[in-house]
Amino acid sequence: MSTVEKQLDDLKAQIADEVPDDISISDVSYEGPELVIYTRDPKKFAQNGDLIRTLAGRLRKRITVRPDPDVLSRPTDAEKEIRSVIPEEAGVTDLDFHADTGEVVIEAQKPGMVIGRHGSTLREITQKVGWTPEVVRTPPIESSTVSNVRNFLKQEREDRRDILERVGRQIHRKEMSDDEWVRISTLGCCREVGRASFVLNTPETRILIDCGDKPGAEGEVPYLQVPEALGAGAQNIDAVVLTHAHLDHSALIPLLFKYGYDGPIYCTEPTRDLMGLLTLDYLDVAAKEGRAPPYESEMVREAIKHTIPLEYGDVTDIAPDIKLTFHNAGHILGSAVSHFHIGDGLYNVAFSGDIHYDDTRLFNGAVNEFPRVETLVMESTYGGRNDFQTDQADSERKLVEVINETYDKGGKVVIPAFAVGRSQEIMLVLEEAMRKGKIPEMPVHLDGMIWEATAIHTTYPEYLRDELRDRIFHEDANPFLSEQFNHIDGGEEERQDVADGDQCIILSTSGMVTGGPIMSWLEHIGPDEKSRMVFVGYQAQGTLGRRIQNGWDEIPINGRGGRSNTLQLKMDVETVDGFSGHADRQGLMNFVRTMNPRPEKVLCVHGDESSVQDLSSALYHEFNMRTFAPKNLETFRFR
Amino acid sequence: MSTVEKQLDDLKAQIADEVPDDISISDVSYEGPELVIYTRDPKKFAQNGDLIRTLAGRLRKRITVRPDPDVLSRPTDAEKEIRSVIPEEAGVTDLDFHADTGEVVIEAQKPGMVIGRHGSTLREITQKVGWTPEVVRTPPIESSTVSNVRNFLKQEREDRRDILERVGRQIHRKEMSDDEWVRISTLGCCREVGRASFVLNTPETRILIDCGDKPGAEGEVPYLQVPEALGAGAQNIDAVVLTHAHLDHSALIPLLFKYGYDGPIYCTEPTRDLMGLLTLDYLDVAAKEGRAPPYESEMVREAIKHTIPLEYGDVTDIAPDIKLTFHNAGHILGSAVSHFHIGDGLYNVAFSGDIHYDDTRLFNGAVNEFPRVETLVMESTYGGRNDFQTDQADSERKLVEVINETYDKGGKVVIPAFAVGRSQEIMLVLEEAMRKGKIPEMPVHLDGMIWEATAIHTTYPEYLRDELRDRIFHEDANPFLSEQFNHIDGGEEERQDVADGDQCIILSTSGMVTGGPIMSWLEHIGPDEKSRMVFVGYQAQGTLGRRIQNGWDEIPINGRGGRSNTLQLKMDVETVDGFSGHADRQGLMNFVRTMNPRPEKVLCVHGDESSVQDLSSALYHEFNMRTFAPKNLETFRFR
Repeated sequence: MSTVEKQLDDLKAQIADEVPDDISISDVSYEGPELVIYTRDPKKFAQNGDLIRTLAGRLRKRITVRPDPDVLSRPTDAEKEIRSVIPEEAGVTDLDFHADTGEVVIEAQKPGMVIGRHGSTLREITQKVGWTPEVVRTPPIESSTVSNVRNFLKQEREDRRDILERVGRQIHRKEMSDDEWVRISTLGCCREVGRASFVLNTPETRILIDCGDKPGAEGEVPYLQVPEALGAGAQNIDAVVLTHAHLDHSALIPLLFKYGYDGPIYCTEPTRDLMGLLTLDYLDVAAKEGRAPPYESEMVREAIKHTIPLEYGDVTDIAPDIKLTFHNAGHILGSAVSHFHIGDGLYNVAFSGDIHYDDTRLFNGAVNEFPRVETLVMESTYGGRNDFQTDQADSERKLVEVINETYDKGGKVVIPAFAVGRSQEIMLVLEEAMRKGKIPEMPVHLDGMIWEATAIHTTYPEYLRDELRDRIFHEDANPFLSEQFNHIDGGEEERQDVADGDQCIILSTSGMVTGGPIMSWLEHIGPDEKSRMVFVGYQAQGTLGRRIQNGWDEIPINGRGGRSNTLQLKMDVETVDGFSGHADRQGLMNFVRTMNPRPEKVLCVHGDESSVQDLSSALYHEFNMRTFAPKNLETFRFR
Repeated sequence: MSTVEKQLDDLKAQIADEVPDDISISDVSYEGPELVIYTRDPKKFAQNGDLIRTLAGRLRKRITVRPDPDVLSRPTDAEKEIRSVIPEEAGVTDLDFHADTGEVVIEAQKPGMVIGRHGSTLREITQKVGWTPEVVRTPPIESSTVSNVRNFLKQEREDRRDILERVGRQIHRKEMSDDEWVRISTLGCCREVGRASFVLNTPETRILIDCGDKPGAEGEVPYLQVPEALGAGAQNIDAVVLTHAHLDHSALIPLLFKYGYDGPIYCTEPTRDLMGLLTLDYLDVAAKEGRAPPYESEMVREAIKHTIPLEYGDVTDIAPDIKLTFHNAGHILGSAVSHFHIGDGLYNVAFSGDIHYDDTRLFNGAVNEFPRVETLVMESTYGGRNDFQTDQADSERKLVEVINETYDKGGKVVIPAFAVGRSQEIMLVLEEAMRKGKIPEMPVHLDGMIWEATAIHTTYPEYLRDELRDRIFHEDANPFLSEQFNHIDGGEEERQDVADGDQCIILSTSGMVTGGPIMSWLEHIGPDEKSRMVFVGYQAQGTLGRRIQNGWDEIPINGRGGRSNTLQLKMDVETVDGFSGHADRQGLMNFVRTMNPRPEKVLCVHGDESSVQDLSSALYHEFNMRTFAPKNLETFRFR
């Protein structure tokens, strides 16, 4: 009998002991980090209000209860019962019964009303029909990404259960080593922005954190081939953790499956969906630019199938000696500061991922309270000594001014923006400015994936700033549905119309002008000296965005027929900072200053060479902590 | 056709071009780092005095010329001719013909006279008989190690040629990566003394440097299981470099073959023989102490079979992108500062191994002149701020004093000493002191492997200090053959006789009192308050030697019947420093001060935590260089 079988047998006996005699326990098994309990008495289980919570506390496990398939009522009967229990206003849009697990997935416009106070409605459902309800939100704006992901996961349920069972056994395997140490290896994004990737390694476990590309430097990918990463075989990686969906953190996650990785990806649910959206687009862009894509779209599906979504604050076993907890990072939807608790009190490491310290219109500021943390691996994008950004209020005033000036000259405003995050922030600014009459009402055209990304934002309002969440759901005043916003879905023809038309604002990807529809807008609007290009986000070295920002006005561009032309840029170029998804120098310092507890060591990563050096030195001098500015391909030992 | 075949074909054509028309080239092949040229005209080759040197310069390769087997004269005829060419005084003791390679191994008491001025006698031999002569020295003191190694290698010639050919192809394989970086990973001996082991890693190549055990801490071996070492498979290591034969650098080299390693070991010839001696003894000691040995003696033979010996100063290709050069380290016989030239001008790293900066009686001081060197990995055994040792002249006076005092009281002097290095140094001191009448003539008993180690020293006089080498061979005044020296080869009975007898001096292993015959001497002489134990070498933390030095006088000891007793130590305990094989703090600082060129970075390793920290800080403050005190399991990137 394997050690895991033995463990499960012991757990089954213990659970049978703890539950009332009239509740039978037919089986227990692991599915990913969860312990699943099968019972012939799901209704009685649901009647004992706190039973699951009590068990979870005793066993120190996350617990799911499932009915034995043969005690379930028929779906048609169950559906009637369920609809009678859930209030009409919940707006149920779909019910999907899965007899293999006894689960019924309920899609509703207002999931909170399906759940009920402290889960009372869910319990009532189980008490009546035996089925275990699971609730998902109906996207307020239709999102093909969300529906594709949901349909795909439905279709792959069986495979997925196999994966989860395998992962569950891996997580709960017996610890093998007497040795104790904690190390971090740097595979990318050290003394540079882009290709984020790290390995967290103990004698038991190897975790890969992020796996991104480097914008503006196609060939430079994380050093995955070294032995401490995949060089010793992809099967040596226990788990992958993704802090957020931006491509410089996520682009090469699907590649891992091409290399033979077959384990879990931990991230938040919105990060999973956004990763799907962005990596598929990444393949598209590569194909359009005639580059060989590093993997096929099938690998994106593999990544999604292997994703185990976690919510902020869930403490989750991801290996015998490692617990992972995500916390809001304030950077983009679903972005997470990732906290690793290692070896039952041995050591704690937090990876900031990308963070925004202050609240923005979209998100609450990054969390920096932890039970314990000895080492912080921290982004330093704006860590340079002069990298102070304007207050967002001032930035908004400046943006309003620039728009008004351009409008008065009869020009158009073109804003290159990341589809995810900056676009939604700017949309909120523009919506309010028009509503309050600070700028004239005019169309705001959204090109590239901005519309779709916005739809995903509205699907996961729990991840947005409190006030915004309330506006979207409680007051039915969803700002993203304002009528100025136009989704460019008519291709070049529609762009030509817009270019020929009246004043307007255009938000388009890519955010660093490295491809995508912004290239068309450059051609359409670039030669118009009345118009303006306004940068609102970070432009990495080597990107066309950075060059234009630095004054380039002759842009080599691939003409329609494949010939290369030079585009004379005549439009004004303006940078309005303060909208970054990244904390500025002050924000980074504040993040550490108010961090509780203060870490002993900080590794400054994800910034140009001078930024990481400056930040590292400033943290050392101000807080008297040990700080480092690692290079790629180094390994640091902490215990 | 593989790239290596193609390369060899090109080389063959080039060589045919370069040599006179009447010399035929039948084949060329790689054997380890050497290019072997087969010819039907070995005599003509030998007549063209500088031809081989010219070719070596043109091709930038080390070259060996071998006759085609069918052009060789018969061994019986050849032997007569050879003996007629070599002067009688050379003292030829053996001739051994190998028809497979056309080599004749000539063992002689005075190899220099077989070689002749600039190799003239060797060339004369080839001109006369066609065979290629190879000369080895007849050990002046019979050494079972040397004769066992030589016989073993003779017996394994075929296997060995296969290995060399395979290694040769590996070394000359095509470079595969466009990337350029240089890293060092620490597997042991960081912030500790013992278990020396490092990995030097480029995109092409992984080199393991040293693989030792930790005296006084049996379980603590180098972290070989991590992926950057053997975790990704032993076949990923291209080469192993051994700086010297002490067990804290060599003990686990044979283990690599148990783990599947099948590549070359680079070290000097004396290091190879001493490694054989010391690792076999290591297995013996483990067996005697009832511990499971980590490998079988068969693995020691594998290690010897895979050794490619290099001489000081030979620049040798050991990988497509790495050249290795050994330099005298002054620490023990054959010890080498190992200089790695990486990527044709990209980077240079020197590993000091263990060093002695000043000249000693046995050895010239460590070499610290290199064509280039950016990073130095440096031992720090005596790197602490107070680790100044007495001058050797003062130490010798003190030792003489201690011996005279003990003699006058009627006691015996017991000196625990490493078999290799310290014993011979002390023997030279004692021989001179007696010869000059500074101490009374009395027997000096050599126990453990000291005698055998001394024999190995006299086999390789080129590795000894100039004056000593001359005494051994030119004046026939070999100090190690003085009549006072007695080899304890009669076991416990002889020890009992010595203990019961008159005043004498006993040199015995192990040097840190961790086992071996010194344990018997403790029992025999320990309770005698007239006698003295004199420490002359470094005592590592956790060893019995260190404890006795610190004042322990109740020694738990395994009695004859396996019962454990407590031994009351009544003999005086004295430490005479200044005989260490290690540079002291001043020596280490001087090594760096006079190093040419001065390195940019120094990694301080191989010292207690405070020693490495002190040395690292002192080097930084005095020479304004970047210094580090690495932990085990870290990786540093230099380019």
